[in-house]
Amino acid sequence: MDEFSCCFCGPAPAAAIDSPFCPKCSAPLLSGSGKPNRAFRWDRPIPIDVFRDYLPLRKVDPALTLGEGDTPLIELGRIASRYSIPGTLWAKNEAANPTGSFKDRGSVVAVHKAVELGFKTIGTISTGNMAGSTAAYAAKAGLKSIIFVKEDTGLDKIRAAGIYGALIVKVRGDYGALFQKSFEIGRKRRVYFMNSVDPYRIEGYKVTGYEIYLQLGSRPPDYVLVPVSAGGHLIGLMKAFLDLKADGLIRRMPVFVGVQAAGCAPIARAFSRGTASVKRFPNPRTIAHAISNPTPPGGDIALRMIREHDGLFLSVPEASILRAQRLLAREAGLFVDPASATVAAALGPLSRARKLRPADRIVLVITGSGLKTLDAVAPETIDFRESSLEDLEDALAGTG
Amino acid sequence: MDEFSCCFCGPAPAAAIDSPFCPKCSAPLLSGSGKPNRAFRWDRPIPIDVFRDYLPLRKVDPALTLGEGDTPLIELGRIASRYSIPGTLWAKNEAANPTGSFKDRGSVVAVHKAVELGFKTIGTISTGNMAGSTAAYAAKAGLKSIIFVKEDTGLDKIRAAGIYGALIVKVRGDYGALFQKSFEIGRKRRVYFMNSVDPYRIEGYKVTGYEIYLQLGSRPPDYVLVPVSAGGHLIGLMKAFLDLKADGLIRRMPVFVGVQAAGCAPIARAFSRGTASVKRFPNPRTIAHAISNPTPPGGDIALRMIREHDGLFLSVPEASILRAQRLLAREAGLFVDPASATVAAALGPLSRARKLRPADRIVLVITGSGLKTLDAVAPETIDFRESSLEDLEDALAGTG
Repeated sequence: MDEFSCCFCGPAPAAAIDSPFCPKCSAPLLSGSGKPNRAFRWDRPIPIDVFRDYLPLRKVDPALTLGEGDTPLIELGRIASRYSIPGTLWAKNEAANPTGSFKDRGSVVAVHKAVELGFKTIGTISTGNMAGSTAAYAAKAGLKSIIFVKEDTGLDKIRAAGIYGALIVKVRGDYGALFQKSFEIGRKRRVYFMNSVDPYRIEGYKVTGYEIYLQLGSRPPDYVLVPVSAGGHLIGLMKAFLDLKADGLIRRMPVFVGVQAAGCAPIARAFSRGTASVKRFPNPRTIAHAISNPTPPGGDIALRMIREHDGLFLSVPEASILRAQRLLAREAGLFVDPASATVAAALGPLSRARKLRPADRIVLVITGSGLKTLDAVAPETIDFRESSLEDLEDALAGTG
Repeated sequence: MDEFSCCFCGPAPAAAIDSPFCPKCSAPLLSGSGKPNRAFRWDRPIPIDVFRDYLPLRKVDPALTLGEGDTPLIELGRIASRYSIPGTLWAKNEAANPTGSFKDRGSVVAVHKAVELGFKTIGTISTGNMAGSTAAYAAKAGLKSIIFVKEDTGLDKIRAAGIYGALIVKVRGDYGALFQKSFEIGRKRRVYFMNSVDPYRIEGYKVTGYEIYLQLGSRPPDYVLVPVSAGGHLIGLMKAFLDLKADGLIRRMPVFVGVQAAGCAPIARAFSRGTASVKRFPNPRTIAHAISNPTPPGGDIALRMIREHDGLFLSVPEASILRAQRLLAREAGLFVDPASATVAAALGPLSRARKLRPADRIVLVITGSGLKTLDAVAPETIDFRESSLEDLEDALAGTG
């Protein structure tokens, strides 16, 4: 049995994965600390297995992985200039994961657990990235999957998850209520709903943190900027550096910056108001669909962790998001979804909130591929011409 | 000055990259052999730099890479069973490259060359994968890019390349004639058109071959199946194993299997007819758009190399392609584009053409992500329901 604890109430009694909430305060439970004498095991060929000592997994089964992880850390020289920030800037490109988003990091760990616990069906609630990731890992593991999607979910997102053989159910009603309902259904039908703040999913996100540390030469960055929706990704990344600190591998935590879009910024709002708990964000409306969550289940935990470790939350104006998306594509060759673009858009606000220095090392965590949100690219922003083969040279006049 | 040679006429006189064709027979030139005493350099942190001794590059500049390469090799146990083939089956997932296709392997090498040769603008002809890849690497390198696309190219493909700031020109007219015209324009305007059979692009594809060899424990596979369009990818992969053989690292070549869709199979047709040169394929029409090239410029070279090394070309029926796409998604968690699905569809035809054995190691090269061709997923193949939150349990009746 794995250990769980509540961020607010301490160690939790033995919990089942179909009810991963604190019996006292209802906060999502987190996985307890790792194995004694843990270390990175470089002799293991599968990327995630290198980090197994830090994960609640007894073994890593190659039949359950899709080759997630080991994603590039790419320096963004011209982006730093364009936003006039000192320091060195990198993108940790989680869009390079098998299904095109960071979710795969969490899915692989949660699916290992599903198999260990004998589940035959897994499920999740999603409008996009999580659906495809959960359905893909279910398929790889030979499990069935059930994906609940919002009623306004478009056909392409249904295709991108349905192709894996998942049962897709479009649900009318409140998304927050659906989150609770899914666990109830899970208990009745023995379906493991590995939702956004699933404790094993969060453990999977830690691996990204270890990789950043290693890719920077076994030193922590000074700042890590992460798009924040439910809060699970940020919590996982922070847990990674807390592990490294607990083991004496680093002496100080990076400053974590949780980024939300102005059109749906419940946690950033609570942070700036100084309140301890996150309230529902009214009338959410943002181009960054992947982080549009007005009732983030991990919000209170993320808020507390950020405050304990001198981090901050920022919200970025909607107009700045697509500008940042274009800039990342044009100056860095990275086509990211609008949710990921928020972290570049946050560089200006960050440099006003904190004094950045030339020696600072800043990491933007890119969470999803722009190929998943092509509609966000306005045709009028593209340099586009038409020509016959004969007139082609004339058509190029003024270029080059 | 790099060495070039013609597959048919031998070493070529010094050639410029804006005219990379044999002066005698007009075949595309290939890059000459690598450096003496070449070896894999494991002390270098950037994946492609490990293989630099085998590439026509003086140095690898981190500012020109997007973290391409080092893609997963994933075992496909249930796919082998479903196609009733003996042996062990793997997918080399090139869709995990930064822009979602194998093209990035070639783009990174060709862009290095563009910078070395002082080009300020690069270009290509494409209907999809090549456009996004070339535009992305141009953006990363700070170069301009010009992309010629066919007149029937859809808006989403234009978005996926235009986002990088490329000039997109939709050209009416013959695609084969456009291929020649692009070099003429390139010479006049000093634009390096790094098209499908560019010799440096082909060198980049070799790295995938070295990785397969290494991921299989420094042993060659028995079979490698690759989707074939212009021919450049297959040529590059074969060159990799020829390098390994020349260096004494392997004793025998894998059997290479070039796969085309029945609706556009000019090279497979020439192969089965026993002719030495590839003729235009009339009325091409296939669901595998990424490999729909009726006049493949590398066709004759690929045909010769395959015949010299006991390989084969296969064409697969159109109806088998989407079936294979679904199977890869449902049984292996891999969502690939129809072009990539052809290699799974070819397993049946391969087992009828050659006697496969239980000890055989077979690699399917996956070339592009299914996220780029969502339209190919028919909605009626998806298990889809709608429900209110209240009726959700009833909606799940009969599942689990």
